[in-house]
Amino acid sequence: MSKTNPGNFFEDFYVGQKIKHATPRTISTGDVALYTSLYGSRFAVQSGDSFAEAVGYKQSPVDDLLVFHIVFGKTVADISLNAVANLGYADCRFLKPVYPGDSLTASSEIIGVKQNSNGKTGVVYVRSSGRNQRGEVVLEYVRWVMVRKADLAAPAPETVVPDLPQIVAVNDLGSACPHINNECWDTQLAGSPCMWGDYRPGETIDHVDGMTVENAEHMMATRLYQNTAKVHFNQLEQKHSRFGQRLIYGGHVISLARALSFNGLANGFHIAAINGGSHLAPLFAGDTVYAWSKVLDSCDLPGRSDVGALRIRTNAAKNANCLQLPEKPDENLILELDYWVIFPK
Amino acid sequence: MSKTNPGNFFEDFYVGQKIKHATPRTISTGDVALYTSLYGSRFAVQSGDSFAEAVGYKQSPVDDLLVFHIVFGKTVADISLNAVANLGYADCRFLKPVYPGDSLTASSEIIGVKQNSNGKTGVVYVRSSGRNQRGEVVLEYVRWVMVRKADLAAPAPETVVPDLPQIVAVNDLGSACPHINNECWDTQLAGSPCMWGDYRPGETIDHVDGMTVENAEHMMATRLYQNTAKVHFNQLEQKHSRFGQRLIYGGHVISLARALSFNGLANGFHIAAINGGSHLAPLFAGDTVYAWSKVLDSCDLPGRSDVGALRIRTNAAKNANCLQLPEKPDENLILELDYWVIFPK
Amino acid sequence: MSKTNPGNFFEDFYVGQKIKHATPRTISTGDVALYTSLYGSRFAVQSGDSFAEAVGYKQSPVDDLLVFHIVFGKTVADISLNAVANLGYADCRFLKPVYPGDSLTASSEIIGVKQNSNGKTGVVYVRSSGRNQRGEVVLEYVRWVMVRKADLAAPAPETVVPDLPQIVAVNDLGSACPHINNECWDTQLAGSPCMWGDYRPGETIDHVDGMTVENAEHMMATRLYQNTAKVHFNQLEQKHSRFGQRLIYGGHVISLARALSFNGLANGFHIAAINGGSHLAPLFAGDTVYAWSKVLDSCDLPGRSDVGALRIRTNAAKNANCLQLPEKPDENLILELDYWVIFPK
Repeated sequence: MSKTNPGNFFEDFYVGQKIKHATPRTISTGDVALYTSLYGSRFAVQSGDSFAEAVGYKQSPVDDLLVFHIVFGKTVADISLNAVANLGYADCRFLKPVYPGDSLTASSEIIGVKQNSNGKTGVVYVRSSGRNQRGEVVLEYVRWVMVRKADLAAPAPETVVPDLPQIVAVNDLGSACPHINNECWDTQLAGSPCMWGDYRPGETIDHVDGMTVENAEHMMATRLYQNTAKVHFNQLEQKHSRFGQRLIYGGHVISLARALSFNGLANGFHIAAINGGSHLAPLFAGDTVYAWSKVLDSCDLPGRSDVGALRIRTNAAKNANCLQLPEKPDENLILELDYWVIFPK
Repeated sequence: MSKTNPGNFFEDFYVGQKIKHATPRTISTGDVALYTSLYGSRFAVQSGDSFAEAVGYKQSPVDDLLVFHIVFGKTVADISLNAVANLGYADCRFLKPVYPGDSLTASSEIIGVKQNSNGKTGVVYVRSSGRNQRGEVVLEYVRWVMVRKADLAAPAPETVVPDLPQIVAVNDLGSACPHINNECWDTQLAGSPCMWGDYRPGETIDHVDGMTVENAEHMMATRLYQNTAKVHFNQLEQKHSRFGQRLIYGGHVISLARALSFNGLANGFHIAAINGGSHLAPLFAGDTVYAWSKVLDSCDLPGRSDVGALRIRTNAAKNANCLQLPEKPDENLILELDYWVIFPK
Repeated sequence: MSKTNPGNFFEDFYVGQKIKHATPRTISTGDVALYTSLYGSRFAVQSGDSFAEAVGYKQSPVDDLLVFHIVFGKTVADISLNAVANLGYADCRFLKPVYPGDSLTASSEIIGVKQNSNGKTGVVYVRSSGRNQRGEVVLEYVRWVMVRKADLAAPAPETVVPDLPQIVAVNDLGSACPHINNECWDTQLAGSPCMWGDYRPGETIDHVDGMTVENAEHMMATRLYQNTAKVHFNQLEQKHSRFGQRLIYGGHVISLARALSFNGLANGFHIAAINGGSHLAPLFAGDTVYAWSKVLDSCDLPGRSDVGALRIRTNAAKNANCLQLPEKPDENLILELDYWVIFPK
């Protein structure tokens, strides 16, 4: 029996396969403090228990993206240790609030496989879930990754490409958001007077600020998530790679963009769902990240008069701010994220 | 309605103006652990619950300077986003102990304005307060900053320069310090046999050690405080600045100097007040910080036989230790801080 | 009275001397989160309260090595501030689990002294203990360090070299490990199907992954442990040293090797004892650390049917993985650690 984990290769995956991931993880206020120190996030609900309690949470919930990264991190050793690239996300829904003290576990089901024509790699579609200590699903998402084959002679499996929603339906939003007591929502403490009704589809917002990233920071973040993808940590190997250096975990970029988006979306306190996302280019230590957003849609939530949802597309770029970029993606663009954010009405 | 915060410019401030700052912030043991990892502070009261409880606290209080940085950080988006320089501090008093779990908010009042003769900038005097979840003021301080005008044609306001105390009066010290049970003060655990009575005005103490600072560290610290001043984070912009690099938040230097001062002031467990402070030169990543102190005064506290106060002036320098420096400020000096420290008797 | 601590020199130590160290330290979930972010450790018992509770702990205990580093850190100011080298460890036993919220103090007894023939240095043998807030010893270990003399004319003391065990006896293991409920040990959550009985003496395991270390990381770690050894922090001084740069705390290497060893020893949830250890060469920022292990022995624990012990030797190297190294130490080898690890049966 091999004692070390070589990770799964493309030919090891099959549709219907279920995987329970190591390692269970209790999220603490220590993780929350580190998350703040890594990104500087300022959303009032996640930052102050007093604010969160006033508006309807039992205390400050853990940042949605911290939950995402911790669940994602658990899947790496089984799903993407031999991945060439993380191709995309879909149907990501945040289903229950997570509080400090909650213990998360993760599991996945393979829902699609498609060998590439080169015969050396294939795409694996995976639906992953994070559960709390009561077995409640707190997060569910699909991602697809390109994974290497170990045995090039292994036969190609029957192609199965799952039918994934382009957009998470409005009916599927809001379950992680308690009833919000709008009278107690203090817009000065929250950092902006702009509520749900103040945003219009088509509107764009430049989040203004830039943030330079260091190697120590992204490695501390990625280890905090117990994500073991080798490309983030090993300079000795990476110096012989195409890029010559460590790659920054794509989720680090998502969290930076979200933290920067406070300046323009301060009352957007909860990510209810991620419709889709792409990492368009790699980020390296020393690069400076900027972000801007476009409001794609604005919806009421069924049965909710307290909050509404905005569909937002946030882009991040490196080493160039919004004003320096044309509309179309170019080499500076590193992220496109399409998601639903909950605002108070 | 603009969705992003451009910050206030000099002409936006007026005497009597009151500002409630975003973002409420619950301080946790996670913040405390990060603070230890960033500065290596070793004061027994703040480090060990067992010690703190023995001497009279309900548990280890949060380091005074961590409270200061968190309150200060909140004021930046409204007060100093367009600041040229942070000119000074006065009348800073720590009024209640802060414990992990407390939620802090900050508010400010403009108490003075003075346009500079160049017509492009002005000095704004601000009194800021931090309050806990019960509305109790835990910290109050005045700072004055030089802020740019956006509209150079805006008329100069009537000059108001507040009358600020050179020194916080002894009567105003000690309210954040519970009655200390001196019999339970274990000087071996605290790290030094020197109590209040062992220090004499005029005495100087070289704190010996030096600490080199990295970019990842000061950015993690400054984000932990949710301080958004751009000069600390954006290398892309800063490389075109006068210094060519990111500036380290001045409060980072204060915390480094305080942590270094343990070697010489180990029983000085509580900063009761800051009389004044100046950042004499900027600090950059790669620089090494040293500190030394002079005892300026020694006072009983009215009605207190358990503790006394020392007025201390701590200087920090970069890339040169105390012995290499003349008495007068030179290019290596980066900080002068005049403050009251409480010692057990 | 000197206000600053010059540290002890060789001639200041005598056999039988007892030292109570500053600073008491409460360990929190914040420390645990930082530890995870610094090393990426994934052992299920220490990571998830739900897992720990299921198998028999009251909650996730603090990582054994975090306890070690915090106790070790306290001894530095009194024992090794003037040390030339940390020569070795022996008889290190973890005696009680430590949980977040526990407050640790440390004390030491000098058990041997031996002046070197050059008359400038000597070896000091020290037994150190860490105690929790109830006075229970949670950790005990011996280390010996080479310490400079301040007064070269001081007479050599009578040589006393303590008789130290090569190996901690099996009877002395297991007191920090509660009865483990093996039926609740979920090997998928724990990350490996390999239990105690699956390992054979003589077996070697390459832990595969490499981890590059940055200055910000090791300084944050070492300050978290309140370890004040100057060589880790002061680049201005170190640039004139033999190595020209800051040395990384040896314990940082131990924790990195332990975290890497998860890939191969995932069910080895508890270090019961360290038989011996040597730092064979220094590690510097920018270096990449690899680790591999050899099973030296496999033992039942007296009276325990739930768990067994493996004696493991873990080596760490810099900038070369296991396959690139010969059996014998060479310049890339940085650590040899001989220890007992507890596995479920």
